[in-house]
Amino acid sequence: MTEATYDLDQTHDPELRSWVEAANDKNGDFPIQNLPVAVFRRAGSDEQFRAGIAIGDSLIDLSASCLSPHLNEPGLAAINLVSSSSLNEFMAAGRRAQRALRRNLSRILQHDFPQRKRVAGALIGLREVEFKMPARIGDFSDFYCSIHHATNVGKLFRPENPILPNYRWLPVGYQGRTSSILLSEQPVVRPRGQILTPGSADPIYSDCRRLDYEAELGVFVGAGNTLGTPIPIDRVEDHLFGVCLLNDWSARDIQSWEYQPLGPFLAKSFATSISPWVVSFDALDPYRRPHRRPDGDPASLPHLTSSNDATRGAIDIKVSIHLLSAAMRARGLPPARLSLSNYADAYWTIAQVVAHQTSNGCNLQPGDLLGTGTISGPAPESRGCLLELSEGGSSPVSLPSGETRIFLEDGDTVIMSAWCEAEGRGRIGFGECRTTVSKAV
Amino acid sequence: MTEATYDLDQTHDPELRSWVEAANDKNGDFPIQNLPVAVFRRAGSDEQFRAGIAIGDSLIDLSASCLSPHLNEPGLAAINLVSSSSLNEFMAAGRRAQRALRRNLSRILQHDFPQRKRVAGALIGLREVEFKMPARIGDFSDFYCSIHHATNVGKLFRPENPILPNYRWLPVGYQGRTSSILLSEQPVVRPRGQILTPGSADPIYSDCRRLDYEAELGVFVGAGNTLGTPIPIDRVEDHLFGVCLLNDWSARDIQSWEYQPLGPFLAKSFATSISPWVVSFDALDPYRRPHRRPDGDPASLPHLTSSNDATRGAIDIKVSIHLLSAAMRARGLPPARLSLSNYADAYWTIAQVVAHQTSNGCNLQPGDLLGTGTISGPAPESRGCLLELSEGGSSPVSLPSGETRIFLEDGDTVIMSAWCEAEGRGRIGFGECRTTVSKAV
Repeated sequence: MTEATYDLDQTHDPELRSWVEAANDKNGDFPIQNLPVAVFRRAGSDEQFRAGIAIGDSLIDLSASCLSPHLNEPGLAAINLVSSSSLNEFMAAGRRAQRALRRNLSRILQHDFPQRKRVAGALIGLREVEFKMPARIGDFSDFYCSIHHATNVGKLFRPENPILPNYRWLPVGYQGRTSSILLSEQPVVRPRGQILTPGSADPIYSDCRRLDYEAELGVFVGAGNTLGTPIPIDRVEDHLFGVCLLNDWSARDIQSWEYQPLGPFLAKSFATSISPWVVSFDALDPYRRPHRRPDGDPASLPHLTSSNDATRGAIDIKVSIHLLSAAMRARGLPPARLSLSNYADAYWTIAQVVAHQTSNGCNLQPGDLLGTGTISGPAPESRGCLLELSEGGSSPVSLPSGETRIFLEDGDTVIMSAWCEAEGRGRIGFGECRTTVSKAV
Repeated sequence: MTEATYDLDQTHDPELRSWVEAANDKNGDFPIQNLPVAVFRRAGSDEQFRAGIAIGDSLIDLSASCLSPHLNEPGLAAINLVSSSSLNEFMAAGRRAQRALRRNLSRILQHDFPQRKRVAGALIGLREVEFKMPARIGDFSDFYCSIHHATNVGKLFRPENPILPNYRWLPVGYQGRTSSILLSEQPVVRPRGQILTPGSADPIYSDCRRLDYEAELGVFVGAGNTLGTPIPIDRVEDHLFGVCLLNDWSARDIQSWEYQPLGPFLAKSFATSISPWVVSFDALDPYRRPHRRPDGDPASLPHLTSSNDATRGAIDIKVSIHLLSAAMRARGLPPARLSLSNYADAYWTIAQVVAHQTSNGCNLQPGDLLGTGTISGPAPESRGCLLELSEGGSSPVSLPSGETRIFLEDGDTVIMSAWCEAEGRGRIGFGECRTTVSKAV
């Protein structure tokens, strides 16, 4: 069921080209080395949703009958699992099934594949489709992996003591809400809630006045573990399916009033947005980086220490946030970048997060979602939320329209994107997670 | 879809008797006025799980074909929804469907029902069945409704300031884990986790040494609400399905190390136990009590204030915890009562909890589960967890075997039960939630 090696194989060859011409664009998100999966149908149709694999400006419809004659046996077995309208069954089958599908599709999509004309009928342009949540998400848990984010936020509350004693020992996390997870393009409604107004000790029930995004990555669980059986850190990635973009919407005024002593709740549960495309760990493997703790920090406990921090350590994933205000849209201005950060700067790796989450015996199930927490880096321009960028609301962010932002306004569109690139390795991308804020009801 | 009145009807008549003789026991849990629902099959069989309604020492198999000729049209429509192996569809149909089924079964089970011999074939003895989780639980959120619990626990951490400023303004809560929700009779495995040992600032990864139960009630959601649309407090109970027992297992040593700043996580996510029987709000209505805040406390905000705190206020539900240690079991001693508390003593009502949870627009879905938080009362013997009973571990609890407990030992069985009783109204009960602690793996 599991495989311990993450060797790069022929699907990672940076020289590979596809007969889908747009996949050979060096700046595109979906070259033949990527092959992320989503659940889709033709936009506006009443077709069944089914799985597709992105390639260039198109996707391969995995339900297309023209594919099967060109798959080997493991590929056929894998594709049979993705025929339903969510990926949970495929996720449950584990990394071996996922890899079989990747290898088959990589072969079929290569520029010199002899029967390319026979499988071209499975291609559908990305502009022609609409997406659905990739999985039935059983549980969503969210973490706090970036020490830069934790420090920036901690300083606002505890200037002398921003990082609490447990931070360097365990990846702090909490359970999130699954019912309100949205897909890219679905609007987020400004929440209402209890907030304190300046100078008053008594709260009012009001529209949120400090609405924020958080730039995160989401990790989908593949094969789960049994209740009572922790996943050893070196086996974690055999249990994971892939990575998507995740925007953890946050109502900062609701949060600061409600969060003690049991943590954030209504400040988060009104919405979380994810991208439709899920990028596999196989696609991410060329972008690994050794993961090192700063000098002087305690060593991680053995169950949170990987035997090989290069092959199972950090992953270089750049995460970008752009904002497009209603005024910018009206004037035809392009979205403005607010931040650019990198998950490789996080204090905790995905492997550590999952080893920790299951270390008490907690069971993960196929389709469960984990969030990394806001991905911020050490530089001011790498702060992954407005709370940090505006230093708690004291330092407004300027937009090209002449507007400023402390927190989000109605009509603002937040556009997340992410990509990996490395010398001699080319680039793969995650698509977008694009959400517009609509006014409170 | 919704009904605003909670008038008692003929199903509540305390004089009603059933032809199922055991249902007429004044001290039993399942008289004809109760009629809770569970999902069951014959123990050890490979039958499909299906819904049953408890009556005395038996249940009515709702899939039995002998029932349908005796149901009216709304009753038939309702029973068709409970034929699947979880109650989610029936829950989604709302309180009207639930009430239709209750009225039909109350009529069929009355002592003078003319065709009682024809429906007796649907009866199965409770000793002959095994249970399954009543619903697919999408989200589980847990609250902190008892100010006595919050005070007792708060005093251990902040002796001068046990209750935080937000406590009297909103029902504090957090999202819990659904994957590890267990049914009564399933053992709970002692978790492992990071804990601090006395005198050390550095944690170790160890078996939990401070394992505790928490006596709570669980509330199942019936008809859900749409994302973005809060449920007004006076309509809350149209959206609820019923109440079960809930034991919120807690690892106190893991919790105290991990919980800042994002709340409890691994201290809870290893297990939560619930009872198989779900008691409807219709069955609970005779046990309503006005809900009053202590003099001097702030009035609740309008969206958390019911227009009628008698009919939609507190519910008198007594909650009892017994412990049976391995030594007591070996000596044939009966379980010893550790506490007896009452949900009517809680600071926050179920209606307030749900109005709060949806006040930011968060959507509840059929089958979602809410926990009340530990139900403690003002008296020492009404403390609903060992952390409170042992005053943080400083005051051991004595057992009839001569043993003492600060926290739970391997082999201990925790037995939760609950019931309602009122002058002239008789008694209804919730069955049991019984869980034995097994040693860490």
